[in-house]
Amino acid sequence: MPTIDAALAFARRHQSRAVDTLREFIRIPSISMSPEHMADLRLGAEWVAGRLRSLGVEDVRLMPTAGHPVVYGRWSGAGQAPTVLVYGHYDVQPVDPIELWKSPPFEPEVRGDNLYGRGASDMKGQLVAFLHAFEALLQDGGPAVNLVFLIEGEEETGSPSLEAFLREQAALFACDACLNVDGSILGPEEPAIVYGVRGLAYFEIHVRAAAHDLHSGLFGGAVDNPALVLAQAVAGLRDADGRVTLPGFYDDVRPLAEDERRELARLPQDDRWWLEQTGAPALFGEKGYTANERALARPTLDVNGFLSGFTGVGSKTVLPATAMAKVSMRLVPDQTPESVHQALEAYLRRVMPPSVTWELKQLAHSLPGVAARDSAAVLTARAALEAVWRKPPLLSRTGGTIPVVAMVQQILKAESVIVGFGLPDDNLHAPNEKIHLPTFHRGAEAFIHFLAGYPA
Amino acid sequence: MPTIDAALAFARRHQSRAVDTLREFIRIPSISMSPEHMADLRLGAEWVAGRLRSLGVEDVRLMPTAGHPVVYGRWSGAGQAPTVLVYGHYDVQPVDPIELWKSPPFEPEVRGDNLYGRGASDMKGQLVAFLHAFEALLQDGGPAVNLVFLIEGEEETGSPSLEAFLREQAALFACDACLNVDGSILGPEEPAIVYGVRGLAYFEIHVRAAAHDLHSGLFGGAVDNPALVLAQAVAGLRDADGRVTLPGFYDDVRPLAEDERRELARLPQDDRWWLEQTGAPALFGEKGYTANERALARPTLDVNGFLSGFTGVGSKTVLPATAMAKVSMRLVPDQTPESVHQALEAYLRRVMPPSVTWELKQLAHSLPGVAARDSAAVLTARAALEAVWRKPPLLSRTGGTIPVVAMVQQILKAESVIVGFGLPDDNLHAPNEKIHLPTFHRGAEAFIHFLAGYPA
Repeated sequence: MPTIDAALAFARRHQSRAVDTLREFIRIPSISMSPEHMADLRLGAEWVAGRLRSLGVEDVRLMPTAGHPVVYGRWSGAGQAPTVLVYGHYDVQPVDPIELWKSPPFEPEVRGDNLYGRGASDMKGQLVAFLHAFEALLQDGGPAVNLVFLIEGEEETGSPSLEAFLREQAALFACDACLNVDGSILGPEEPAIVYGVRGLAYFEIHVRAAAHDLHSGLFGGAVDNPALVLAQAVAGLRDADGRVTLPGFYDDVRPLAEDERRELARLPQDDRWWLEQTGAPALFGEKGYTANERALARPTLDVNGFLSGFTGVGSKTVLPATAMAKVSMRLVPDQTPESVHQALEAYLRRVMPPSVTWELKQLAHSLPGVAARDSAAVLTARAALEAVWRKPPLLSRTGGTIPVVAMVQQILKAESVIVGFGLPDDNLHAPNEKIHLPTFHRGAEAFIHFLAGYPA
Repeated sequence: MPTIDAALAFARRHQSRAVDTLREFIRIPSISMSPEHMADLRLGAEWVAGRLRSLGVEDVRLMPTAGHPVVYGRWSGAGQAPTVLVYGHYDVQPVDPIELWKSPPFEPEVRGDNLYGRGASDMKGQLVAFLHAFEALLQDGGPAVNLVFLIEGEEETGSPSLEAFLREQAALFACDACLNVDGSILGPEEPAIVYGVRGLAYFEIHVRAAAHDLHSGLFGGAVDNPALVLAQAVAGLRDADGRVTLPGFYDDVRPLAEDERRELARLPQDDRWWLEQTGAPALFGEKGYTANERALARPTLDVNGFLSGFTGVGSKTVLPATAMAKVSMRLVPDQTPESVHQALEAYLRRVMPPSVTWELKQLAHSLPGVAARDSAAVLTARAALEAVWRKPPLLSRTGGTIPVVAMVQQILKAESVIVGFGLPDDNLHAPNEKIHLPTFHRGAEAFIHFLAGYPA
C-alpha cells in the first residue's frame, strides 16, 4: 500500500502543523449555548469551510438552518466508490466555572503531552485529525471513498435544528455510511469503536409558590416553599438502589443480551478506573448492573442543575418565590423522549401540591441509536484502528448522546460508526478540557487507514 | 400635656424634613452581608452618630465589635427616671434580584404614599421616625425617660458580634427596659405591639459526589448525583402536612396556650390576607394550626437557597460535582439553635449515602424570645399607640427573628417591647422595599407619646 505509507509519512512529518491548526480552531470561542457568541459560531463555521476549500473539497458552503449553519462540502475523487458522510461539529460547551481553569479556555496551552482548551477533545481535535489524514492522502490520489461533509454548529445544545435540516436536504447528504468523528477511545493504549449511543431527554421543571420572594420569618409557615416542593418531586425520581422510580420508565427498555454483557465486561474500565476518573468516594448506580453497563448501556436519570433563592455568602432569610431544576434522562432502545416526557408530566401532575404552580419544559431530546456490528463502516474502522494500535479495538457503546446518529439512521437510512480519539480523562464539558497529543496523532493515522481501506 | 402637644405640633410641622432625612440615610448602601460594602457600613454608622450628636446626645461614639461598629450614645436629661435602651440597626439586606426593582434601591423615590428604597422600612425609616420624635420632645424639656442608644450594623446577618459585645459592655448598656424600634404593625389602621420573636437556626449543607463536574452521558449512572442526594435529604425534612419531620424537632416546643391562641385569632390577618400578601395559589403549613399561628408562633423549616450544576439557559449535560442548600428553621420557646443543629447533624449522618461526602455549616443562630405582657414598656407602648390610632393596639408576636431581644433579656435582664411602623406589604428583604409615609408620620407621633408617657 504505497499510498498509505506515503500518507502516513506525510502526516508524521507535519504533526506540529496539525497542532498549530488545532490551536487556531480552539481560539474561536464557538459556544453554541450562549447568544453572545453568535458571531463566533459564524467564525467557527467559516473556519471549517476555509479548511475544506483549501483541501480542494468542492461546493463548500454554509447552509442555513433554523439555528447555526451547517458546513457542507463534497469530495468526489473516488469515482464509483461508495460515499461516506463525515459528521462533526464546530461548536463547543460553555466554560463555567471559569475560575477552575488553569489556563484560559480559548488560549490553547500545551502542558506535558496535552493541549488544553475548550473543544480540544470535543471535538475540534477530532475534526482536525481527520482533515490532517484527508490532506495526507490527497498528496497521492486521495481516499478510496467519496466524502460528503456535514459539520454542524448545534451539537452541544442537542442539535435542535438538524433533524428538520436533514429531512429537507436528505438528497444532498445521501450516503452509504456515516463516519462520525465525535468519539473517544478508552485509553491511550485502548482503541475502541462505538456502535451505539444513548438518547437524551432533557427537561426543566419550574415551581412557583408566591408572587415574589418573601421574608422567611414573616411568611415562613404560611405559604409553601418551592425549593422544598421541587426537592421532594425530584427526590421521588430515583431510589436508594439507583433505580429510576419514574413510573413506566423501564417499560420500553430492551434488556441487555447476555453476549453484549460479556462484551461490555471485556472493557478495561473496572470499578477502580471509574473511581479514579471521577474522584468519587464510592460508585453508585442501578443495582444488578456493573458500572460499565450502567454508564454505557442502561438508562439513567440525573439532576443537571438546581437553583432557588439566595445562593451567595451568608444567611439571607428569604422564602424564595421560585425554584428550578434541570433533569435529564439518558435513554436506550426502545425508549423515546416522548414517552419519558409523558411519564414525567403525569408524575408531576400527581405529586405537585395545590400550594404551588409549576411548569415542565422539554429542552434537548434525542433518540438512542445502536448500529449493526458487521457493516462495512464498522469493519473498516476496526481494521484501521488495529493497523495503528496493533491490537483489535474493543466494540463499545457510549453513554453519551449524539443526536445525529439516530437521525442519519432514520432519514438517510445509513448506519454510523463513531471513531474519535478523545480520552476518558479529557474533561469534556468540564474545566481544563484537553486532548492527548500522541493519541491525536495516532488518530490521524487511523483515519488514513480508514479512508484508504474502505471497500469499493 | 403641653409638652406632648407642642412636640406633636413640631413633628407635624417638620414632616417633610423627616422624609428628607430618611432619604439621606437610605442613600447609604449599608449592606452588611457584602464585603464590598465595608466602607458604606462605616458611613451608615457615622451618619447615625452625627444625627445623635446634633440632637445633643452625650458621649456618642462608634464602638468596635468583632464586625461592624455599634453606635452608642446616652441622653440623661430625665434625671432619676428609668432608663430605656433604644435598639436599632443601620445595616440593610442585599438587593438582588436587582432587575426586579422599579427604581434603584439606593435612590429613594416617592411613588404615591410610599417612599421606595432598600432599608426604607427595615429599618432606617423606624430609626428616623424615632429620632424625629426625640427631636420634637427636646424642643421643650425632652423625654420622661433617660435613653441609651445601641444601634448595630449586623442585624441583617444575624448579629454575629453583638452577643460578645453586649457581654463585655453590659454595664454601659444597663437599662430598665428595651424599646426595640425594628418592628411593624399589621396595617395602616391596625396598630400592634410585638412581645415575642421567633429564634433562628440557619445552616448550609454541602454535598460532593465527584472531584469535578462530569459529563452526564459518559459518567451518569456510575457515580452519584449530589443534587439528587441533597434533594432527597432536604425532602425528608418536612411532610405533606407541613410538619417538620426532623427527628426531635418538636421536643422542646412550648405548646401554645389557649388564651394566646384566642388572642392570635383576633389578629386581622385572615387566610385571604395571607393569600393577597404572598400571591400564593393556596396557603400551606402545619396541619392543626391557623396561618397566623404557623407564621407567628409555631416553628418552621424553610429552604432559603439551593444551588447545583448548570443553571443558565439551555441543556448543558453536566453531572454536577457538588450541591449546596441553605436550610433555616424559625424557633419558638424552648427550642435552641444548638438542639436543632444536633438533630440536623444526626439526621444527615443517617441519610447521607457513602457515595458522597458532605458538610453541615451553622450560620446565623438566635434564641427565640417572648416578653411579659404586663411590663411598663409594653403598657406604655400600648397607651402610646392607642393615643395616635384611637384604638387599642393588638398584642402580637412576630415570626421574624430579632437576636437582640433574647440577648437583652439574657445579658441585661431587661424585657423588650418591639414598636415599629413597617407594614406587611413593605417588601422587607425583597425588591421594591418601601415605607408608607402616612404611617411613618403617625409612628413618630406614637414615639412622642411613648417617650413622654413612660412612668417614673
